[in-house]
Amino acid sequence: MDRYVVIVAGGIGSRMGEEIPKQFLPLHNKPIIIHTINQFLIFDPDIQIVAALPELHFPRWKTLAKKYNLFENIAVVFGGQQRFDTVKNALKIIPDGALVAIHDAVRPIVSIKTIAQSFKTAEKFGSAIPYVLPGASVRFDDENGNIAPLDRNKVRIIQTPQTFHSTKLKEAYLQSYQENFTDDAAVWEKAGNKLTFFEGDTENIKITLPIDLKIAEYLILHE
Amino acid sequence: MDRYVVIVAGGIGSRMGEEIPKQFLPLHNKPIIIHTINQFLIFDPDIQIVAALPELHFPRWKTLAKKYNLFENIAVVFGGQQRFDTVKNALKIIPDGALVAIHDAVRPIVSIKTIAQSFKTAEKFGSAIPYVLPGASVRFDDENGNIAPLDRNKVRIIQTPQTFHSTKLKEAYLQSYQENFTDDAAVWEKAGNKLTFFEGDTENIKITLPIDLKIAEYLILHE
Repeated sequence: MDRYVVIVAGGIGSRMGEEIPKQFLPLHNKPIIIHTINQFLIFDPDIQIVAALPELHFPRWKTLAKKYNLFENIAVVFGGQQRFDTVKNALKIIPDGALVAIHDAVRPIVSIKTIAQSFKTAEKFGSAIPYVLPGASVRFDDENGNIAPLDRNKVRIIQTPQTFHSTKLKEAYLQSYQENFTDDAAVWEKAGNKLTFFEGDTENIKITLPIDLKIAEYLILHE
Repeated sequence: MDRYVVIVAGGIGSRMGEEIPKQFLPLHNKPIIIHTINQFLIFDPDIQIVAALPELHFPRWKTLAKKYNLFENIAVVFGGQQRFDTVKNALKIIPDGALVAIHDAVRPIVSIKTIAQSFKTAEKFGSAIPYVLPGASVRFDDENGNIAPLDRNKVRIIQTPQTFHSTKLKEAYLQSYQENFTDDAAVWEKAGNKLTFFEGDTENIKITLPIDLKIAEYLILHE
């Protein structure tokens, strides 16, 4: 099956305290999103890439695409209000009958192994959702004044790339938006599809806070 | 109230793939446990410290204590089979009517601010448990084939230092060991006491895997 990846970079960036959205911040001399894209190109030089970006930052993207010679490989769609809208926009240009991975632009340390396992698992089972176990005790606030312990061996911290059969994912994205659609797994599941999980790796961090950028820099330098 | 801290270093270390347990591994030229102890001494030079160590590694500790001039400040007790037994051993030498923080030796990046807030909160409310929010979607495996989403805004990743009124914590540790006693909060709560939570910081990482050691090194260098 043909392979696609949607690089979700819809954020306009405020939590990092920077004007530049975090996917464009430099990480060891290259913008974060370029590292992320490169990992998928190393996995499969023929993979078809869709970058979903804020329209506001399209000029910035054009400069980067020129600099890093990415025009041939990469289609661009504009991000929407919510992550849900952004992915939905991107899926419009993905054909049926393919495999499509949805990946956060701000997870540049994703390993080739994890990408490969996500595609392989999805090809076989329809979906593939990477997770890691928490490294500490975990509790859950039921908002009735009770913050109760959870069995940490049963807690799954969810990551990307989440990969799916494109026909069914596109169908799932025809649903109306719901507040608990925090990732593609939730959208897929709500449409009545089965999820398949696999163990990802802890290095596949999401760059959200300034400290995450520092950690990513260290990891990139010590790969 | 007098302040005590138990530095829990019971682990004999296997997950790191090293013969030396992780609390003794070097981190920017000093063993991890020395960084951890120093943070508490910076917070309060008069704090009374109990290090709970594997008996097997006591010779290693003696060498360190001499090198870093720690004999005056620090009492040593030996670790038990479980973390529960280790803390219980340490509490035997803590007086009633004090405040006692229990802290993982392998969390050397703990900030002075978090230590201060833990003691202050516990003095007022009896207990103080630091937590952080997860940075990603979270699910829970109910082991009936259902891995259901949790509202991530209600999930609490629990950290240390967990601080308590010593009299009541010592009472709580008279209970028999249970498998779900993964931290002191669980022991305290099971004895019928109320838990008070406060927001810690994401930099207060627990060094479990080799990658965590790399991250800690980076954080120490960029403090």
